[in-house]
Amino acid sequence: MNHYLEHFSRNMGEGGVPEAKREFLEIGRLAGKFPAARSLRDGVTSEISVWCSNDYLGMGQHPLVLAATREALDEYGAGSGGSRNIGGTNHYHVLLEKELADLHGKADALLFTSGYTANDGALTVLAGRPENCVVFSDEMNHASIIDGLRHSGAEKRIFRHNDTAHLEELISATDPDRPKMIVMESVYSMGGDVAPLAEIARIAREHGAMTFLDEVHAVGMYGPEGAGIAAGLGIADEFTVIMGTLAKGFGTTGGYIAGPAELVDAVRGLSRPFIFTTALPPAVAAGALAAVRHLRTSEEERDRLRENARLTHRLLREHGIPFVSDGSHIVSIFVGDDALARRISALLLARHGIYVQAINAPSVRVGQEILRSAPGAVHESAEVEGFVAALDGIWRELGVTRAQGPHGSPVTDG
Amino acid sequence: MNHYLEHFSRNMGEGGVPEAKREFLEIGRLAGKFPAARSLRDGVTSEISVWCSNDYLGMGQHPLVLAATREALDEYGAGSGGSRNIGGTNHYHVLLEKELADLHGKADALLFTSGYTANDGALTVLAGRPENCVVFSDEMNHASIIDGLRHSGAEKRIFRHNDTAHLEELISATDPDRPKMIVMESVYSMGGDVAPLAEIARIAREHGAMTFLDEVHAVGMYGPEGAGIAAGLGIADEFTVIMGTLAKGFGTTGGYIAGPAELVDAVRGLSRPFIFTTALPPAVAAGALAAVRHLRTSEEERDRLRENARLTHRLLREHGIPFVSDGSHIVSIFVGDDALARRISALLLARHGIYVQAINAPSVRVGQEILRSAPGAVHESAEVEGFVAALDGIWRELGVTRAQGPHGSPVTDG
Repeated sequence: MNHYLEHFSRNMGEGGVPEAKREFLEIGRLAGKFPAARSLRDGVTSEISVWCSNDYLGMGQHPLVLAATREALDEYGAGSGGSRNIGGTNHYHVLLEKELADLHGKADALLFTSGYTANDGALTVLAGRPENCVVFSDEMNHASIIDGLRHSGAEKRIFRHNDTAHLEELISATDPDRPKMIVMESVYSMGGDVAPLAEIARIAREHGAMTFLDEVHAVGMYGPEGAGIAAGLGIADEFTVIMGTLAKGFGTTGGYIAGPAELVDAVRGLSRPFIFTTALPPAVAAGALAAVRHLRTSEEERDRLRENARLTHRLLREHGIPFVSDGSHIVSIFVGDDALARRISALLLARHGIYVQAINAPSVRVGQEILRSAPGAVHESAEVEGFVAALDGIWRELGVTRAQGPHGSPVTDG
Repeated sequence: MNHYLEHFSRNMGEGGVPEAKREFLEIGRLAGKFPAARSLRDGVTSEISVWCSNDYLGMGQHPLVLAATREALDEYGAGSGGSRNIGGTNHYHVLLEKELADLHGKADALLFTSGYTANDGALTVLAGRPENCVVFSDEMNHASIIDGLRHSGAEKRIFRHNDTAHLEELISATDPDRPKMIVMESVYSMGGDVAPLAEIARIAREHGAMTFLDEVHAVGMYGPEGAGIAAGLGIADEFTVIMGTLAKGFGTTGGYIAGPAELVDAVRGLSRPFIFTTALPPAVAAGALAAVRHLRTSEEERDRLRENARLTHRLLREHGIPFVSDGSHIVSIFVGDDALARRISALLLARHGIYVQAINAPSVRVGQEILRSAPGAVHESAEVEGFVAALDGIWRELGVTRAQGPHGSPVTDG
């Protein structure tokens, strides 16, 4: 048809797109019954149980969230109708930003339509704007952080995952007069391990560095009122900007940053993915607001999440099934082989109706393939037992490597 | 507090963030009564009329859209719970992608959470992947196109706005063996003018170039079944990829591309803003699906939009109030001065309850400031008359420059 398409086919020929990325399992998580879901495969519908959702606390089906969403939908309609600056700012956006700033004890907060654009948009401005800024970034940081830093044009130094000695070494070797930023996550999305935040805060303090903390897998789930891991340690004020999501613990969609007024103002005025994007639907903001408010007072969901995480780790350890970390509710079962991880995932689904996605590159490195499970507040203890029993059976049948060592994990970088 | 913040303040001191970008008008567009909205200013609520919404057809309040959204919310809850590849694909995402592919007569389609990420994510892959690709981009292309092309790393050649002679000159001077892409919009967001698509298609054909057409301000509103401007000209098949949004004519939120299976597959497997983002809420996809389906059969909304656009342009011309283009429903009233545009906008709101946002840099160039109005399918003819009368009064009072010439516009690049 044209030169472009010929070139494209040629360039794509050699494994450009992994086959595994082309087919997504189609599920309908049933509100009120989740983790139960309906799944459509090969034209046949069956009921399955979801073990890899980021709706960790089940807030996506919480009656308060659904009622708030419905009410705003009836009042304000489906979409926001514009960018925040051009006709798209609804009262719920403003209320939600105030609530998030308050949750994190920061002066201001700013909503984005996703966590990806929150990291990309905020870091492009915050790392790119101060002249000569140098950024220290954990090597396992999320793609959206990597992209935001790349787009900022700032000089970047990568420290080994959660390795504060390496961070200190790199930052000590840097001109003290240069503006510095340290970027890390609290709970890492693929390993489920937790950053040594107190130690990072100390290093930042001593070197006058700004800190940008991604708490997407922690907000709603950890700390007082669900304010995150840093808040749980009592050191949220040591992190200049806290970035979070509404799409995981809070069960809806969208991302945000919370921080000092001056920095949030700069992002509001300069971030292109913020400026040139239609604002979240008012009904989404209303639902998220209800979720945040509920989780500021309710401990029930966090208690259930913690109990299930503990039970899962204990049972996996007893069966010698390897996992990356026991630091959080994210239980990444280590496989280390793409084809094998996909085979185990397929068997779990076909035989047991258990859906755990096999994770391959680029989400993890080649050779670090995992089954990323997240037993949530919505799973029953008996279901957790059934889940581990199913894994154990497949491990036996396929002769998958069992774990050794105290943490039940054969990997060292998590 | 730290070096970073000192540096940041210093760098921001010199007009980094325009003041106008810090305050957003807070409105609640009333479902069922839009263009009426409630506005909260200085603690006082008043009813206003919105003249700058991108919900051009009022689909955000359409009963079919609201019913479909509610139904999916009741069935599947508030959020999708994960990225498309990891537990976040719902039946409605699949149905909507099929519907959009069908609408545009393409093999496949792919949803993003916004138009910004659709352009950014798709162009990064499509311009970046074929080795040695050269991109010809209209100088007025949207920020999301500019960013996507920048992130692709591809070589870029800018042609003057809608200037096909310049495009032809640039493309003729390029090595015929290199893969080529032409990127343009159909309706330009700030000027409302329309691209010479037939001529661009001819040039693309003759030079073997791939074409990427952004129809965000056209889908739902122009062409048979609302398939866009290219479809209206009967040449949609000459554009390799058509990009659109669900947040304007379709009244909800999200962006998409539609194109050949091979290209859509590549974007699905490689685009980072796609892969690393929580999927749209199923209820949003369901609402958008209802909007797309309705607008494939109903002409009523498109007829009203066209009539109002014609009436507005005619009345503005009669009163000598300058506008950028009469090519579409986007009526950008030309002011050409930031402070004056903001003053007119403030007067319209305070005296007449008419909300039209003044647009300044970076959305338009400095000196090209406009009042971007969009009389929609929801406005009555009498309201259009009142709108122009209000403008006329302010033009007289402030002695704003009147238009000369046949198109009623003092600018030449629109």
